Amino acid sequence: MQDQIAGGGILHRRSLLKAAGAGVAAGFLVPVRATEDWMTHAGEVQSEYGSPSKFARLKREQIGGHTFGPEAGSSSSPLQDLNGTITPNSLHFERHHSGIPAIDPSKHKLTIFGDVARTLQFNYEDLLSYPMETHLYFLECSGNSRRNSLARPLDLSAGSLNGLLSGSEWTGVPLHYLLDEAGVKNESRWIIAEGADAAGLTRSVPIKMALDNVMVALYQNGEPLRPAQGYPMRLFVPGCEGNISVKWLQSLKVQKTPGYTRDETAKYTDLLENGKAKMFSLKMGVKSVITSPSGKMQLRRKGVYEISGLAWSGNGAVRAVEVSADGGKSWAEAIFQSEPRPLALTRFRIPWRWHGQKAVLQSRATDDKGNVQPSRDSAIAGYSLAGFYHYNGMQSWGVSEQGMVKNVFV
Amino acid sequence: MQDQIAGGGILHRRSLLKAAGAGVAAGFLVPVRATEDWMTHAGEVQSEYGSPSKFARLKREQIGGHTFGPEAGSSSSPLQDLNGTITPNSLHFERHHSGIPAIDPSKHKLTIFGDVARTLQFNYEDLLSYPMETHLYFLECSGNSRRNSLARPLDLSAGSLNGLLSGSEWTGVPLHYLLDEAGVKNESRWIIAEGADAAGLTRSVPIKMALDNVMVALYQNGEPLRPAQGYPMRLFVPGCEGNISVKWLQSLKVQKTPGYTRDETAKYTDLLENGKAKMFSLKMGVKSVITSPSGKMQLRRKGVYEISGLAWSGNGAVRAVEVSADGGKSWAEAIFQSEPRPLALTRFRIPWRWHGQKAVLQSRATDDKGNVQPSRDSAIAGYSLAGFYHYNGMQSWGVSEQGMVKNVFV
Repeated sequence: MQDQIAGGGILHRRSLLKAAGAGVAAGFLVPVRATEDWMTHAGEVQSEYGSPSKFARLKREQIGGHTFGPEAGSSSSPLQDLNGTITPNSLHFERHHSGIPAIDPSKHKLTIFGDVARTLQFNYEDLLSYPMETHLYFLECSGNSRRNSLARPLDLSAGSLNGLLSGSEWTGVPLHYLLDEAGVKNESRWIIAEGADAAGLTRSVPIKMALDNVMVALYQNGEPLRPAQGYPMRLFVPGCEGNISVKWLQSLKVQKTPGYTRDETAKYTDLLENGKAKMFSLKMGVKSVITSPSGKMQLRRKGVYEISGLAWSGNGAVRAVEVSADGGKSWAEAIFQSEPRPLALTRFRIPWRWHGQKAVLQSRATDDKGNVQPSRDSAIAGYSLAGFYHYNGMQSWGVSEQGMVKNVFV
Repeated sequence: MQDQIAGGGILHRRSLLKAAGAGVAAGFLVPVRATEDWMTHAGEVQSEYGSPSKFARLKREQIGGHTFGPEAGSSSSPLQDLNGTITPNSLHFERHHSGIPAIDPSKHKLTIFGDVARTLQFNYEDLLSYPMETHLYFLECSGNSRRNSLARPLDLSAGSLNGLLSGSEWTGVPLHYLLDEAGVKNESRWIIAEGADAAGLTRSVPIKMALDNVMVALYQNGEPLRPAQGYPMRLFVPGCEGNISVKWLQSLKVQKTPGYTRDETAKYTDLLENGKAKMFSLKMGVKSVITSPSGKMQLRRKGVYEISGLAWSGNGAVRAVEVSADGGKSWAEAIFQSEPRPLALTRFRIPWRWHGQKAVLQSRATDDKGNVQPSRDSAIAGYSLAGFYHYNGMQSWGVSEQGMVKNVFV
C-alpha cells in the first residue's frame, strides 16, 4: 500500500500503471482476428446526419415535477455516460418555460432599443456578417443539484442530480459591437433581454457584464444553435446562471434600472432563512462532481478504478480539485485530464483502489480567485430550503461493501 | 477607403464597426415584440436526444465515384454552414472502406501481440478503467481537397471540396500505458493496427509516434464514439492522415518493420511524376480554407462581410493566417477567432468590403515550425496527377461582379 496517498484507496499517479495492469488486463495467448458477424459483410453506408450506437444507450433524463405540464420542464445531461469536457448538442441539458418554439430565422428579428442613440434591428443574415468570437464555456442551470439540499439524499444518477450542466464551444457576435453601434447612453446600467418563446422569458443583465464577455450566440459546437438552445440566436452570459442566457433572443432594452421581471423576482431568487431573498445572484459558484464511479453504478470487480469528474467556476478557471475516498478525512490532489480554461468545464481524474471496503467519494474544487467549494452543510447554511438556487455543495457518493454506489449526505 | 489594409477590400480590424454598421444595420423605430406564431402557444417538449432545426438544413454531402458501391464511400462536413472549430459528431466527415459495422462492445476485444513480453487482451470495460486524456484535434482524410489538383476547377461548395476535415474533442487512453504493460521489445519499430470492419483496414504506425501522443480513443465530443467513427474504440494519431487512426480497432501487432499493407501500398501513397511513390507521408501539411464567402454562395448586397475560415497543421499549431482578396497580389494578416492549439483547427476571420468588384479570395497559413501553405502550382509540382494525396495548396474563391462565388485556379 506504499502507493496510497490518501485514505480509502486513493493512489499516487505514478503508481498507477502497475496497479491498473494487475487489476484490469490479463496476459494470455489469444486468436487475433475478430470472428464476429461484423467482419463477414459490409456495414451501413454513410449518412447525411449521423447518430450514436444503440449499444451506447445515450439519453437525457426528463426531470418531472413541473405543475404546468411537460412544456415547462427540464432534461439533464447524462454525466455518468460522458467523458471529456464537451457535451454533444443532442445531450445538452434543457430547461424550457413554455416549450421549444420552431422559429423561422427569416422571420425573426433582434431589436436593440431604450436608452440608446439609435434603435436598431438585426435579422439573422445581418448578424452572420458581424465579427465573431469562439470560446469553450460551461452552462449551468441555477437549480442544478438543488435536490441535494433536501432533507434526505435521493438515490439517483450523477446526471439526474447534477446534469443541468453542460459544456460547449460557443460562437457568436460580441454584444459590445451591437451596443456600440446603437450608442448606449451614459447613465444606462442594465440591459433587459427578452426571448421569443411563448413564456417571453425576460432577464436583466448589468451593462458592465454585457460590455465585457457577453455574446449573441449563433453557433454551438460548430453548428447553428439547436431550437432547444435558442435557435436562431440566444444571449450568452458566460459563468452565469443558465436562464440569463436568454434563448430565442428578440430584444435588448437598455435602461437605468433592472427590469425586476417575473423570472428574477417570483422565480430564480435565493430565499434566506430570515425570509428575505437575494436577487441577481448571477455568477455560478465554484463546484465539482465525480461522474464515475457515481450514483446507481455497480462496481463489478475489485481493483483499480479511475475516479473521473468535472469541475468549473463562474468566477474564472479551476485551479485545483481534491478528491477524498474516506468521506473527507483525507484528501489528494486530482490530475487535470483537460486544460483548465476560464468559465469552462475541466475534467479531472485520480486512480483509486477498491478492495471491497466501504468508501465515500467526494471532490472539492478551488478556483483561481481562491474560492473553495463548500460542504453540503456550509452550502445550505442560512438559506430557506423552501426555494433556493445556486447550490454548489460537495457531492458525496457512498460505496457499499457490495460495490453499490449511492448518493449520500455526510 | 483609408481603412483598407490590402487590395480588393480587405479592412483593418479597428475600422470594422463603422463599416459593418453602415452596411448591415439600419436604424428605425420598430415594434418590439414578435408577433409570429411561436409566441402564441407553447412549443415542443424536451427530448431524450435532440436534433437541429429543419430551417438550418444541415447535412453532409455524399461524395460519389467509388466503384465498389456506397459502402466504400465518403461524406464531407458542410464547412460552409459551420462556425467555430468543433464539428458536431453528426456532421463529422466519413470515409469507409466497407461500410459501418454495428459492433456490440461487449463482444469486442483489443489484442496487443507480436514483439512484446506479454500478449494482452482488453475489453471495452477494461479500457474505461484506464487513465484518459482529452484534447482538441483535427482529423483530415489524406484525399481531402485532391479534386483541386485536377486540370479544371470544379464548381462546388467549400465542404464538398475541402470537407474531409473535421475538429473534435477526443478522449481516450494514451497508448503508451498499454504498450508499457505489454512490454515492447527493444528492437521494435512499428505497430500494425487492424480494424474490425469487413475491409479489415490495416495501417502501420512508427512506434516513436505510438509512444508519444497516440491514444485509443473512446469518446468524441463528450459522448462514446459514433459507429461511423469507430465505436467502440479507434486508434487516434493526432496530426496524421485520417485512415491511420484505425476505426473499430481490434489489434495492435508490435514488430520491427512496417506491415506494407494494402492500405499503405496499393492505396494512400503519393505517386510522383517520375513513377516512384512516396510511402508513409503520415503528417498532414499546413493548410487553410476560407469557408465563407465560399463556393456556390451568392453575395446578396454590397457592403462589409466577414471572411471566415479554418487553418490547421499536422506539424503543430498555426502561427498566422494571411488573406488576400486580389488573387495573391496583396495580403493582410487575419485575426484568430479561436485560440490556436497544436494539431487542432483554428478559426480565423478578417473584414472585407465588397462594392461589386471582381475579387479572388485566398488564405495562406503558416505553422509554428515555419511551414507555409503552398500555392496550387507548388502543391502539385512533382506529383503524378493520377493519384496523389496530401494536397494542401491554397483554395481560391472567385467573386463575380454579380456576387457569385466560385472555385477558381489562379
